[in-house]
Amino acid sequence: MLLQRLSLCRLVTCILSVSLARANGNSYAHRGELRQAKRIVVKLGSAVVTRGDECGLALGRLASVVEQVAMLQNQGREMMIVTSGAVAFGKQRLRHEILLSQSVRQALHSGQNQLKDMSVPVLEARACAAAGQSGLMALYEAMFTQYSTCTAQVLVTNLDFHDDQKRQNLNSTLQELLRMNIVPIINTNDAVVPPPEPNSDLQGVNVISIKDNDSLAARLAVEMKADLLIALSDVEGLYDSPPGSDDAKLIDIFYPGDQQSITYGTKSRVGLGGMEAKVKAALWALQGGTSVVIANGTHPKVTGHVITDIVEGKKVGTFFSEVKPAGPTVEQQTEMARNSGRTLAALHPDQRGAIICHLADLLVEKKEEILAANKTDMDLAANAGQLSSALLNRLSLSPAKLNSLAIGLRQIALASQDSVGRVLRRTRVAHNLELEQITVPIGVLLVIFEARPDCLPQVSALAIASGNALLAKGGKEAANTNRVLHELTQEALDIHGVKEAVQLVSTREEVEDLCRLDKMIDLIIPRGSSALVRNIQRAAKSIPVLGHSEGICHIYVDSEAAIDKVIKIVRDSKCDYPAACNAMETLLVHRDILRTTLFDQIIDMLRTERVKIHAGPRFASYLTFSPSEVKSLRTEYGDLECCIEVVDSMQEAIDHIHRYGSSHTDVIVTENEDTAEQFLQQLDSACVFWNASSRFADGYRFGLGAEVGISTARIHARGPVGLEGLLTTKWVLRGDGHTAADFSEHGTLKYLHENLPVTQPHSN
Amino acid sequence: MLLQRLSLCRLVTCILSVSLARANGNSYAHRGELRQAKRIVVKLGSAVVTRGDECGLALGRLASVVEQVAMLQNQGREMMIVTSGAVAFGKQRLRHEILLSQSVRQALHSGQNQLKDMSVPVLEARACAAAGQSGLMALYEAMFTQYSTCTAQVLVTNLDFHDDQKRQNLNSTLQELLRMNIVPIINTNDAVVPPPEPNSDLQGVNVISIKDNDSLAARLAVEMKADLLIALSDVEGLYDSPPGSDDAKLIDIFYPGDQQSITYGTKSRVGLGGMEAKVKAALWALQGGTSVVIANGTHPKVTGHVITDIVEGKKVGTFFSEVKPAGPTVEQQTEMARNSGRTLAALHPDQRGAIICHLADLLVEKKEEILAANKTDMDLAANAGQLSSALLNRLSLSPAKLNSLAIGLRQIALASQDSVGRVLRRTRVAHNLELEQITVPIGVLLVIFEARPDCLPQVSALAIASGNALLAKGGKEAANTNRVLHELTQEALDIHGVKEAVQLVSTREEVEDLCRLDKMIDLIIPRGSSALVRNIQRAAKSIPVLGHSEGICHIYVDSEAAIDKVIKIVRDSKCDYPAACNAMETLLVHRDILRTTLFDQIIDMLRTERVKIHAGPRFASYLTFSPSEVKSLRTEYGDLECCIEVVDSMQEAIDHIHRYGSSHTDVIVTENEDTAEQFLQQLDSACVFWNASSRFADGYRFGLGAEVGISTARIHARGPVGLEGLLTTKWVLRGDGHTAADFSEHGTLKYLHENLPVTQPHSN
Repeated sequence: MLLQRLSLCRLVTCILSVSLARANGNSYAHRGELRQAKRIVVKLGSAVVTRGDECGLALGRLASVVEQVAMLQNQGREMMIVTSGAVAFGKQRLRHEILLSQSVRQALHSGQNQLKDMSVPVLEARACAAAGQSGLMALYEAMFTQYSTCTAQVLVTNLDFHDDQKRQNLNSTLQELLRMNIVPIINTNDAVVPPPEPNSDLQGVNVISIKDNDSLAARLAVEMKADLLIALSDVEGLYDSPPGSDDAKLIDIFYPGDQQSITYGTKSRVGLGGMEAKVKAALWALQGGTSVVIANGTHPKVTGHVITDIVEGKKVGTFFSEVKPAGPTVEQQTEMARNSGRTLAALHPDQRGAIICHLADLLVEKKEEILAANKTDMDLAANAGQLSSALLNRLSLSPAKLNSLAIGLRQIALASQDSVGRVLRRTRVAHNLELEQITVPIGVLLVIFEARPDCLPQVSALAIASGNALLAKGGKEAANTNRVLHELTQEALDIHGVKEAVQLVSTREEVEDLCRLDKMIDLIIPRGSSALVRNIQRAAKSIPVLGHSEGICHIYVDSEAAIDKVIKIVRDSKCDYPAACNAMETLLVHRDILRTTLFDQIIDMLRTERVKIHAGPRFASYLTFSPSEVKSLRTEYGDLECCIEVVDSMQEAIDHIHRYGSSHTDVIVTENEDTAEQFLQQLDSACVFWNASSRFADGYRFGLGAEVGISTARIHARGPVGLEGLLTTKWVLRGDGHTAADFSEHGTLKYLHENLPVTQPHSN
Repeated sequence: MLLQRLSLCRLVTCILSVSLARANGNSYAHRGELRQAKRIVVKLGSAVVTRGDECGLALGRLASVVEQVAMLQNQGREMMIVTSGAVAFGKQRLRHEILLSQSVRQALHSGQNQLKDMSVPVLEARACAAAGQSGLMALYEAMFTQYSTCTAQVLVTNLDFHDDQKRQNLNSTLQELLRMNIVPIINTNDAVVPPPEPNSDLQGVNVISIKDNDSLAARLAVEMKADLLIALSDVEGLYDSPPGSDDAKLIDIFYPGDQQSITYGTKSRVGLGGMEAKVKAALWALQGGTSVVIANGTHPKVTGHVITDIVEGKKVGTFFSEVKPAGPTVEQQTEMARNSGRTLAALHPDQRGAIICHLADLLVEKKEEILAANKTDMDLAANAGQLSSALLNRLSLSPAKLNSLAIGLRQIALASQDSVGRVLRRTRVAHNLELEQITVPIGVLLVIFEARPDCLPQVSALAIASGNALLAKGGKEAANTNRVLHELTQEALDIHGVKEAVQLVSTREEVEDLCRLDKMIDLIIPRGSSALVRNIQRAAKSIPVLGHSEGICHIYVDSEAAIDKVIKIVRDSKCDYPAACNAMETLLVHRDILRTTLFDQIIDMLRTERVKIHAGPRFASYLTFSPSEVKSLRTEYGDLECCIEVVDSMQEAIDHIHRYGSSHTDVIVTENEDTAEQFLQQLDSACVFWNASSRFADGYRFGLGAEVGISTARIHARGPVGLEGLLTTKWVLRGDGHTAADFSEHGTLKYLHENLPVTQPHSN
């Protein structure tokens, strides 16, 4: 009856589930392939199951494991759990019992006075395990029941695998459970294992060898031909040297051949089941055809999705793979870029200029090669049919585009003469003690751009001009074009031996993963849609991002505005290129012009240009038949749409902009110079204009030469950013054995702090 | 028997638990007082209990609620849970049953072909509730059992509170349960409530009025004289206008008198139990003497500690209080500071200078008042006996200290003349179209400093000089001194009507909470220990922090170093002030000097100065009896200790510093100019020195005038930062109706991009 019912369970779930392809018996080569894993073993180390805060158990962790396993099971995968830790459950229970019985005894014999002295004896781990088993299983069952998922308890020992008959029995039992869509929960039968080793942990409970659990999970995974084994414990994964030591780095993908390059530290806190045992088990599973990921299942922020993240192919923990990919990892690329970048920074400005000019030449000389690669990308995109014509347009290169690209590069080469090593300040601190502040590159830049392949040489030239190393990540659609363009860039860099300073990051790398490479990357520059920028700003927690995600620009038409200028400026600001970040979004008009011909002319012009008008709340209140009222005064339309709102005064316009603007670019149109200067002075935006279109907010139009981007940040560069935004400074002090003590109260020297002229004239 | 056992439970727990004071019947005035709450009702809205991802229920959320409740219970508090949502549990179960029975029927009648067409009917909510009740309770019980905590199920309806007899019965039942240390889990008896309203939610289940649950929790809390009601749902708390609308702000503390200032939005997604009902229930509880916090119990990142955070007095959700504190909230202070700061920025430089000079005068004039307040702080600190003599020393002010403080302020006043509004660049973009880049204040600064009260006038003067608004947060120990100093600062600011530009933040505010005020604060400057800086860098996710947490400075002694300079520089760098960030931590020596008298003299000097020496791995390998080997080459000792390591060449020294340094300050000692220039050029640190002590890395010693701090960041300011680090720039464009279209291919104008001289000469 039970079996019958379970079969029906399975029947129903099959209907709901997605059918997934079975792996071919070999382990997976890439993390991305983990999505196909059908049969998955999740191993929960004791740290995951039992290590809690002072309060006791980590119930939340177990619950999230259950949630994720149930979810994956509901996708049609076959999930198995290998769990540790009935010990801690049992410990909790046994202690309680002991305290209770002690308290009863004491209460009977000697009153309550001595209750405080009660101490809990050290508990035997195997007894704890036995006592905890039922509680743990009840918990798993109560949790899985919420997902209508049946579980089955399977107790095994490592020895069961050495006996062929037992192994076959186990195998067929588990196969049958999986067939019935039941999640087997496998645990070592702690009550029959040898007594624990003397190391003590878990506060008063002797430890059971959990090494068994690592190899148990691996044996089981291979026996059951699982596609993936996820081993969760309290370490992030495998490090190349003992974690905590200088330079220890988490290994993203581990290849069996690399095993020599690992230095294992002393065993982990628990004393047994250290990393070496885990790796041994993982390699065993890998040889048997099961892919393995070792990851942290106790990190409070990620535990809720660590299992599903792994199955989705995200960079979590260490992935064991037998197939070593050809190229370097992105971490190795960053290292190469930084080293080569330091040499680039030390070159003479003429040499950096020569590299850029050579790249410009190559773009013209090798145009056939570039255009052929571009044609491949275009054909692929057209066949896939997923790209809009606007995107295809951006993707395509032409001889004309390449020529103008080359011209732009030569301009950057010129600008590069005066970037790195410029002296900004010189001070004579004392006799023979001179201080200089000079410009230096920022370090390693990560530039992320979308379908546009012309970005690559441009951005490379900017990085070279400023002596920065570059990781460039382009869109998948332009992969072939980018590859050729990058080869040419490296060819150019090679004339001065700094080939590796510009690296092309594989399209397989996730942007989110790159944004986590702090300490390796110094600045991220996203070039693309505001969605891309916002996404990157969110992902890059400790790396600065140069850019802006919003451009809510205002034009304020003052009561003393000249009619022709208003019409020209509003039309240009809104209609010249409505998708640009410096296009107008909100038109603020002074109340006095509301019922004038000027206002009618503005409206007529906007109608002629087919601009859809939204009314701000105040404007709407003036009208009988108003256009649709705005949902938010903070909207960036990015299209032929705008908001109109009424203000009483210039001051009110400023207040409105401070409140709803994005500090990008804001404009006043007026003939009154006093009003204009007040506006320019008081308004706190990166760009403030008087009688000029907001569309001028642009590096090229500002005459900055190359444009790196537009920043609305309040530190470092602000507004349109030229090459200077890619530079920082360092202080160089040259002395003759000077010490701070020389200048102390009892010292012999006095500070001069004399400003000296800078040797190179400021080029601007 | 059960009762007897439960009493013993209670007995044991009492012994283990901390005894907490009972509240006095009135609600709490401050969040900090919530720590005293003994009896707490936690209300879980349906969003917390039932709204999951596609997978079903939010098991992890329930588990973390159980963990927190059990932990608080174990602290000796009396916890009660009011839970929603047996509906969703039942839905899951009933659906499953229906599918099963359908499938059986279909399998019998028509084979399996039509199974795919099976659809699940809309389920009646009350039936779901009844079916789900047992599953929900089983889950609570299984979870609480892991903490050895007993639970009891109590089903009530709102009507039970209207019947005096029923209410008394309920009261005494709950009192008895609490007395026995049982957690009552209270739920509405959904099976007997009126039928659901037609709004549909939860995919196919009609909704039961959960409004009942809000008022039920409030009624229960008052009836049971609970100290605190925590109401968790899927909103962050109460907003001053409908969430999602422009300017909607989360209210930190809500006072009943403020109710008019709230605009309620349309009801929440669930249709019932909108915010208005929640507030009504909260106010009802508040009137009855129970404090209330409404918070989000579904946010994945914080759910794990939302309840304990609230009980610890952290700023989570909205706290309802009857007692309105005298001063403004920190959010209001920030707003006031920003507004007043904008006026400050618009003043003439002379006016800002005058404010600072006036403050300098006041420090001397009002010294008695200041010193009296300082004495109070000193006495309090001495009585508490918790501060070390070094800290007491920092805390104390003297007439001499005040005088030199006043002198420093007058220097800042001088420096302020040339800070805000300086033209950095002028470009003629076209005829009558001129662009200027000018310096402007960053905006609102948050400066956090420790026990040192002299920080306050210094930092205020820096902010005033740079036209920035300031939130200053000083240490608790200096509260009285800071209050007086702040009053004097405001008195000085008042001479130009910008009194509110500098705000003193209450010592009650948590630094972590302040660091979360992004969009309100533009830059954080921590002044204090590196632990403080690190803490703030961690907490401030999206606000830039100016500072450095590490100063691992190196002195490299080249093979061609002059002996006297080496001794002088190494002694000064290590011993002048070992706790400073610019003190030497690692001494790198060229291999060739290892067995020379120079080396012996260095060692002798270090021994004489009682510097403890640690050996780097390479150095250790040269020695028979080596000093203790370093644990990490990245150690900042901050004391009379240092590491010595051997390198083969200047190049290897650079590699070592790049690998283990913190890019703060690094020094080469050599007589070879070529080697020195190579080092200065290639080394990538904020300060690189030749034959000078690392201790010169300091704003005052560099001649920057006032020092804001030292930054090891790679963007914005780097190295010792003067007033310039508090400035950013804006671009001002003055035109005559110019548009971008004028310059297009078919336009009439051409860009000139002519560099114009800047009118004010660069003062440095």
